[in-house]
Amino acid sequence: MSKPYNRLNKDDAVVLLVDHQAGLISLVQDFTPSDFKNNVLALAACAKFFELPTILTTSFEQGPNGPLVPELKDMFPDAPYVARPGQINAWDNEDFVAAIKATGRKQLIIAGVVTDVCVAFPTLSALAEGFDVFVVTDASGTFDKTVQQAAWARMNAAGAQMMNWFSVACELHRDWRNDIEGLGALLSNHIPNYRNLMTSYFTLVNNK
Amino acid sequence: MSKPYNRLNKDDAVVLLVDHQAGLISLVQDFTPSDFKNNVLALAACAKFFELPTILTTSFEQGPNGPLVPELKDMFPDAPYVARPGQINAWDNEDFVAAIKATGRKQLIIAGVVTDVCVAFPTLSALAEGFDVFVVTDASGTFDKTVQQAAWARMNAAGAQMMNWFSVACELHRDWRNDIEGLGALLSNHIPNYRNLMTSYFTLVNNK
Amino acid sequence: MSKPYNRLNKDDAVVLLVDHQAGLISLVQDFTPSDFKNNVLALAACAKFFELPTILTTSFEQGPNGPLVPELKDMFPDAPYVARPGQINAWDNEDFVAAIKATGRKQLIIAGVVTDVCVAFPTLSALAEGFDVFVVTDASGTFDKTVQQAAWARMNAAGAQMMNWFSVACELHRDWRNDIEGLGALLSNHIPNYRNLMTSYFTLVNNK
Amino acid sequence: MSKPYNRLNKDDAVVLLVDHQAGLISLVQDFTPSDFKNNVLALAACAKFFELPTILTTSFEQGPNGPLVPELKDMFPDAPYVARPGQINAWDNEDFVAAIKATGRKQLIIAGVVTDVCVAFPTLSALAEGFDVFVVTDASGTFDKTVQQAAWARMNAAGAQMMNWFSVACELHRDWRNDIEGLGALLSNHIPNYRNLMTSYFTLVNNK
Amino acid sequence: MSKPYNRLNKDDAVVLLVDHQAGLISLVQDFTPSDFKNNVLALAACAKFFELPTILTTSFEQGPNGPLVPELKDMFPDAPYVARPGQINAWDNEDFVAAIKATGRKQLIIAGVVTDVCVAFPTLSALAEGFDVFVVTDASGTFDKTVQQAAWARMNAAGAQMMNWFSVACELHRDWRNDIEGLGALLSNHIPNYRNLMTSYFTLVNNK
Amino acid sequence: MSKPYNRLNKDDAVVLLVDHQAGLISLVQDFTPSDFKNNVLALAACAKFFELPTILTTSFEQGPNGPLVPELKDMFPDAPYVARPGQINAWDNEDFVAAIKATGRKQLIIAGVVTDVCVAFPTLSALAEGFDVFVVTDASGTFDKTVQQAAWARMNAAGAQMMNWFSVACELHRDWRNDIEGLGALLSNHIPNYRNLMTSYFTLVNNK
Amino acid sequence: MSKPYNRLNKDDAVVLLVDHQAGLISLVQDFTPSDFKNNVLALAACAKFFELPTILTTSFEQGPNGPLVPELKDMFPDAPYVARPGQINAWDNEDFVAAIKATGRKQLIIAGVVTDVCVAFPTLSALAEGFDVFVVTDASGTFDKTVQQAAWARMNAAGAQMMNWFSVACELHRDWRNDIEGLGALLSNHIPNYRNLMTSYFTLVNNK
Amino acid sequence: MSKPYNRLNKDDAVVLLVDHQAGLISLVQDFTPSDFKNNVLALAACAKFFELPTILTTSFEQGPNGPLVPELKDMFPDAPYVARPGQINAWDNEDFVAAIKATGRKQLIIAGVVTDVCVAFPTLSALAEGFDVFVVTDASGTFDKTVQQAAWARMNAAGAQMMNWFSVACELHRDWRNDIEGLGALLSNHIPNYRNLMTSYFTLVNNK
Repeated sequence: MSKPYNRLNKDDAVVLLVDHQAGLISLVQDFTPSDFKNNVLALAACAKFFELPTILTTSFEQGPNGPLVPELKDMFPDAPYVARPGQINAWDNEDFVAAIKATGRKQLIIAGVVTDVCVAFPTLSALAEGFDVFVVTDASGTFDKTVQQAAWARMNAAGAQMMNWFSVACELHRDWRNDIEGLGALLSNHIPNYRNLMTSYFTLVNNK
Repeated sequence: MSKPYNRLNKDDAVVLLVDHQAGLISLVQDFTPSDFKNNVLALAACAKFFELPTILTTSFEQGPNGPLVPELKDMFPDAPYVARPGQINAWDNEDFVAAIKATGRKQLIIAGVVTDVCVAFPTLSALAEGFDVFVVTDASGTFDKTVQQAAWARMNAAGAQMMNWFSVACELHRDWRNDIEGLGALLSNHIPNYRNLMTSYFTLVNNK
Repeated sequence: MSKPYNRLNKDDAVVLLVDHQAGLISLVQDFTPSDFKNNVLALAACAKFFELPTILTTSFEQGPNGPLVPELKDMFPDAPYVARPGQINAWDNEDFVAAIKATGRKQLIIAGVVTDVCVAFPTLSALAEGFDVFVVTDASGTFDKTVQQAAWARMNAAGAQMMNWFSVACELHRDWRNDIEGLGALLSNHIPNYRNLMTSYFTLVNNK
Repeated sequence: MSKPYNRLNKDDAVVLLVDHQAGLISLVQDFTPSDFKNNVLALAACAKFFELPTILTTSFEQGPNGPLVPELKDMFPDAPYVARPGQINAWDNEDFVAAIKATGRKQLIIAGVVTDVCVAFPTLSALAEGFDVFVVTDASGTFDKTVQQAAWARMNAAGAQMMNWFSVACELHRDWRNDIEGLGALLSNHIPNYRNLMTSYFTLVNNK
Repeated sequence: MSKPYNRLNKDDAVVLLVDHQAGLISLVQDFTPSDFKNNVLALAACAKFFELPTILTTSFEQGPNGPLVPELKDMFPDAPYVARPGQINAWDNEDFVAAIKATGRKQLIIAGVVTDVCVAFPTLSALAEGFDVFVVTDASGTFDKTVQQAAWARMNAAGAQMMNWFSVACELHRDWRNDIEGLGALLSNHIPNYRNLMTSYFTLVNNK
Repeated sequence: MSKPYNRLNKDDAVVLLVDHQAGLISLVQDFTPSDFKNNVLALAACAKFFELPTILTTSFEQGPNGPLVPELKDMFPDAPYVARPGQINAWDNEDFVAAIKATGRKQLIIAGVVTDVCVAFPTLSALAEGFDVFVVTDASGTFDKTVQQAAWARMNAAGAQMMNWFSVACELHRDWRNDIEGLGALLSNHIPNYRNLMTSYFTLVNNK
Repeated sequence: MSKPYNRLNKDDAVVLLVDHQAGLISLVQDFTPSDFKNNVLALAACAKFFELPTILTTSFEQGPNGPLVPELKDMFPDAPYVARPGQINAWDNEDFVAAIKATGRKQLIIAGVVTDVCVAFPTLSALAEGFDVFVVTDASGTFDKTVQQAAWARMNAAGAQMMNWFSVACELHRDWRNDIEGLGALLSNHIPNYRNLMTSYFTLVNNK
Repeated sequence: MSKPYNRLNKDDAVVLLVDHQAGLISLVQDFTPSDFKNNVLALAACAKFFELPTILTTSFEQGPNGPLVPELKDMFPDAPYVARPGQINAWDNEDFVAAIKATGRKQLIIAGVVTDVCVAFPTLSALAEGFDVFVVTDASGTFDKTVQQAAWARMNAAGAQMMNWFSVACELHRDWRNDIEGLGALLSNHIPNYRNLMTSYFTLVNNK
């Protein structure tokens, strides 16, 4: 009855950032704004660090939903960017799915706003087509904890893996020795208490 | 191992509003009263907007449980209305089941008070008969978070989909272009921060 | 893929009250003391009301765990009462299992202190032997919410049904008309807001 | 040592609604959005019901702070409306203070966004000038509970009265007999559980 | 700068139970229903135990607010009972104040529903007239924690003493030896964990 | 308007540990049991470390309240120990007050169970007699957060200083150089994260 | 459909303590520091008490992650200790897996810091190889409750058993009579309220 | 009875950053790490923006408390920096007080770690010497919410003003027109939802 451990592999993973738009983010109340911003940027930094193909998409960004947050736009200038003309489920947009399939990868790392719609719908669609889906729960926000928990339950029941940006980073990295400084910088930039550990450590070591 | 994504379809869905009665609602403590009222009315507005057949039922409304809240009665004047003479599980009432079957639809969108009884029992009955059940968790209330979580766990384990009114609306709508103004109005009326986004947006656009 | 709805049946159910002892209850912190006491007594009242066979058991009650709370002892003077000499899992005690089997019933309604041990262990044992187990989550207490959630997850994964005393009562009762006053009294005694609904209702009705 | 009870008087009170703007409200996280919207509109309804002079003010509404929410604009079409050109503390705006003084009233009922700035600053200024200030805590929102508590402590220490919209309404109304239906309607519109009480009550009474 | 300790004295204290009505209690959400019911009945039991004069009052009990909860009516059959015809602040009702003054006592122990109105208003009125007021915070309920905290701040700033039913009982009793069994019974009936301590203790002592 | 800063002075302070009894502690629910135990023992360790006179007292320890916890008894074998025969307020016991006065000290550092009675009553009595009282809030426990907050408000309003064991330690110690290792050990034993800081630090330093 | 109850067996279980390092523990925020320390030491005490083979491992302990906490090092001086040179998933380290396999045991009891990585990764790896994995949720810590819940969901879905140190102890012990004093001491040392029960009990019994 | 409103004035204010050290910050648990980091840096940015004299101090930074976080060191390269050799209360350090007095300013804006010691002690000392003290509550952290609340109560009772970084910024700035872009940048950098408002706004305005 044991299940195979389908672990994230940096040669088979692609990152999907769905609807992290300036307007929509103002709806998020299941994280503090600073925590949520940090988590989203940390996930983006993972995508960069592991050189994962990354696909950006937005919903109706000319209207009240607002533009993609500029930080993401700036970090991925060359990434496929699908401004959906109206489809709510990004998977209903052919360009989005085509961009994913063009990568030839089967592991989808997904985050977005709001969790119950912009994350859950493409997650369920992708699972149905046989992709492996890894939901980055802490880079995905929604109206409140109740909605968050319902959306998680739905995706979990369908076979999605519930993760967070830090476990994504660690599962991809595998071994500190692959790039100690790189991983250290990633953690230092997005885990304040880890930065503090590093500050204390290097102060002592360098003062030897 | 991938599961098919059985998504809500406005031609195959029916809405069941179970026991949203003036007395019973006073028992709800897992949502603030304003949040709960908003969620219930939002779900009702979805039913109207997507022109879904909707079935109302009440439990013992002549007694302390009290009458159906008037807003729902007013919104669905022609809907089948089953005042159950005593059955606690609405599915035990033949008229209720008959009304559902008369729609010929297989996707049941259900909400009610209290979650662990008035929602969970017909959900389990309907699943056993092969219906697909989508529980609107935020339009269903009960005594406290502990009871809520137990009821969710029971329904989830039996195969119900855990949803919220907003994901129901979005899954039914599929594409903003199907009716931009209609969906916008729905969101504006029931998501205060979305209304604010729209206010700011249209003020700027109209002042151009 | 639909599952049969195995619902509680008053002719096939037996209630197991495990280790509600004066000492052990002082360990419970996942409910307020008044809520927990109310929930336990409400479940006991259900057992009486539906005339379900009820089995009491205690763990090491001569020592610090303390005696069974007197209210339960008084409510079930003739119930099988198994003071286990040392077995932690009540299912390891032959008398306890024999008492259950003597009822010929297959639906076990269980509650106890602490959830992660005194409830979870016999639940898992009983499921393994093919019994249906209905855990009364709100009449079962433990050290804190974290432990509660872990214990629920374990039992849920093994196939136990997560319930609460009120849903147990309603699933057993089926129809208000089976005994309107009896069910009303049960709710009135253990749901303060329901009592208030009844007070307001009958005051108005009687003053007509 | 007893203090005089300076109670709200509808002939001496004026309502100040400060910066309830579409953009700023998206910063509020110490209330759920539905609760906050309800509380603000309830306070506005009190102002209308008691025919209190009401003064609206906004901060920089052409910019990202956004326009005053339309509901308030619509409810008070003839109220003094001070769109401040830049002053953060509304009390630094001469027109705002002049509008208050023009009413000849000494009791200021104030609410706004965000509590720690838009409410606290004019509160402290007004107290320093000898006005009595009644802060409507639940119609005033800010970043989180910590900031809320700090702002309350500062205002409380300076002599402001901490109130909520319901206590404002009741202190102004004094006696149900002054307008039973009017107060009932106010409560029914903004306290869902009170509406439910009324629904159950009138259903029974009217069915006699 | 030291303040005299004005402690409760059973010869100078009177208990005021304000608007514990079946309808109004359904508005209370800052306590669980079982906790709140227990606290109110515990305070009532203190009044009986210390033979304190007790005054009951209700607001508009013929309407949706509903009747006084029967338990209180039954416990104090001979107490002054002031069904106010409309005054929201009980202190505005002459009969209520007259009943208090008739006792010749200066220490008012007050509790009621809702805290911010039915408790706060008479508290502020009484303080202004030189009475000492002891608010029983846990037998007084309101809409949510935010309103609770605002109401407490207002009363505290005006000089009321913030207490709870247990500290009221202990401050009145002074010394266990005044009536060990009486105090023990009071605690046993309303503090479940204390009852458990007594159960374990007496079981051991009696089995010696 | 500035107030003098009456700071704790190890030559003028005395520690009062009131009713930390095995039975009574089972009533505490405003801290986790491990946190509370740690805080109480940390305060006791401060008393030892600063060689403060310490006075122990218990209420009715032969009965259900249970004996003083053995750790405290063991730490202060020679301290005055007042087993009160019945007085609830320790200040009503002549021996207790005499023991305090015998120290000639005016700063009372007090903690106990339950906060609203065993701490609040002697605090108010001592303040009334001109003592300075420093309440160790985190070594004092009670039924729940609501009662905790009411008790704090009462003591705070009467002039008590709200502290915690760590601020007591630091205010007494004044300067790390007075005993670096001693203070370090105190923190290491009772602040797990501080112990971790020390572990990491000394590992690095010693490995140089 | 009943599942076999695979219960912990002291002859088949091995304890894995993963990365309880002084630096990493400072990242834990889903438990209070005292609770977490207590839980980790309690699990370690179980391992000793039941004489379970125990394997310690650390991640990069020369750097900011810091050394293993000394308490664990001291408790298991002869245990296999695998200081991983870089592998994040301990299962990727051959020595670690070899140490486990050398025990010949199939039941892995695992705890660590952080839950979502240091616990989840080896759990998933071990499950994939057919081991039974029992996660000690309360001796495993991480960044916040959201991450905790995601990590639990992932492990639970993969077939891990969610436990806590107390249920581990009880499932291993089976029967109090196997060693009453031993189990009593374990509970007394790590469950403060249980210690209190024992204190009260033995005081009474010994004073007979 | 009205109090003068002593408002922050950029010509009379000085900022004191006390003990924001890499080790000590790992003790903070009353804010999420990202929120706390953001708040501290936001306060520092205010100090820079308003060109306020700023004084840095640390406690024992060679030891486990760790170095000042580098961000602060870098932002204020020329600020007085007092590495205290041992005094816990920074006010006990003559250099620190001298640095404050050298500014000739009377309004102290203070934040630090931990709130109950490093902030509270100098706050009380400064108040006693006639300074005005403005505590930046959200840039000051400590062990948990209970300790936070006790520390706030103590400082508040002594006359300190409870503030947050945003209210400090706004009270100093007075009028947006003093530097619209500057204040906008400050808010954009430290209030994620405000940044989103600006993004949406300028996108629309620039696209006109």
